[in-house]
Amino acid sequence: MNNLQDKLHYTFQNPARLEEALTHKSAGRLNNERLEFLGDAVLNLVIADALLKQHCKLKEGVLSRMRADLVKGETLAKLAQTIDLGAHIKLGAGERKSGGQARTSILADALEAILGAVYLDGGILSAQKVTLALYENELKHAEPRKDAKTTLQEILQAKKQAPASYEVTKTLGKQHDKAFYVTCTVGKLQSLGQGKTRKAAEQLAAEAMLEKLKKK
Amino acid sequence: MNNLQDKLHYTFQNPARLEEALTHKSAGRLNNERLEFLGDAVLNLVIADALLKQHCKLKEGVLSRMRADLVKGETLAKLAQTIDLGAHIKLGAGERKSGGQARTSILADALEAILGAVYLDGGILSAQKVTLALYENELKHAEPRKDAKTTLQEILQAKKQAPASYEVTKTLGKQHDKAFYVTCTVGKLQSLGQGKTRKAAEQLAAEAMLEKLKKK
Repeated sequence: MNNLQDKLHYTFQNPARLEEALTHKSAGRLNNERLEFLGDAVLNLVIADALLKQHCKLKEGVLSRMRADLVKGETLAKLAQTIDLGAHIKLGAGERKSGGQARTSILADALEAILGAVYLDGGILSAQKVTLALYENELKHAEPRKDAKTTLQEILQAKKQAPASYEVTKTLGKQHDKAFYVTCTVGKLQSLGQGKTRKAAEQLAAEAMLEKLKKK
Repeated sequence: MNNLQDKLHYTFQNPARLEEALTHKSAGRLNNERLEFLGDAVLNLVIADALLKQHCKLKEGVLSRMRADLVKGETLAKLAQTIDLGAHIKLGAGERKSGGQARTSILADALEAILGAVYLDGGILSAQKVTLALYENELKHAEPRKDAKTTLQEILQAKKQAPASYEVTKTLGKQHDKAFYVTCTVGKLQSLGQGKTRKAAEQLAAEAMLEKLKKK
């Protein structure tokens, strides 16, 4: 565990917090789920803050997509591997046998839990330092990416295909708590998206369509 | 604006930040969207931290639902009204004429932007103080609520109806980026849910079903 603390550049005042962060729910009742809840919020704030300061001119929507890429499970799991986190995670017997220590979600959750534990142990500034050190490279190379509808439109244009059409096929709920269901159609292919606004549902439908086109 | 700062119990070192937070996108290019992105993250962390410390025994899923209720648009708009925020928001002419200063989303976004502005101006501890002062009552009265599937089950049991059935009607995407589409059926009624896991999609379908039953 000292090895892990070295890699994090952080020494816990109360090492029990680190242990809790390293305990997967398969290993017992005092596990890392609560710390993960906190760590997820720490991570989202630290990355939002870093992106905002690094990119003075980018709009909220672009920053939001950049952050989503940085905080998603795959990115977290990749970073967890750079500090050999899997070797330190406590798993139940079943999870251990099936190779749980290498699973994306288990690695990602444990890393978030560690950030939550550092936050409780040393405050937000310590958690920020640990996060920024882990994310140094990722933040350096983070680039704005286009939204899914724009990407889809460009792909279809390049192939000289007709543009995608979007149709709201269903709405549920009341004024402030609506769900929109949108169907995206490209030729004979259809994909679905659901969101709190029409725009959000269209983006999700476009993302699903991009997945379908990749598989073709 | 001094009046508003009094109500927030915070005085800005750089009042331009407060002005930016109060400028809706309809009023100009330098508006509060970037600050709202940051403030949303500040709010999520401060509330996660407060709930975690206040409720030592509650599981992550319960805390997560409690937070969702506290940070949603309606709650933010209600709190915005307690400090008479609408009167200070700068809107474009069209939005002003149509009563934008009273709209839930405009109030909620501006309040989040203010939290982002306080964070930039005075650091996380100042932002935490302002947030906790605003949320004092809400946090005091926050209660665990059951998840949508459980609530639906209890309602149907009380009415002596058959339980809801859930069916995955579609899955899209690959291993780590899946979307599940679930249909919930209660008698002749059907509702849809989409999520990254089967469980999440079922919960959303159950929420949609609860909405439908309310309207009946």
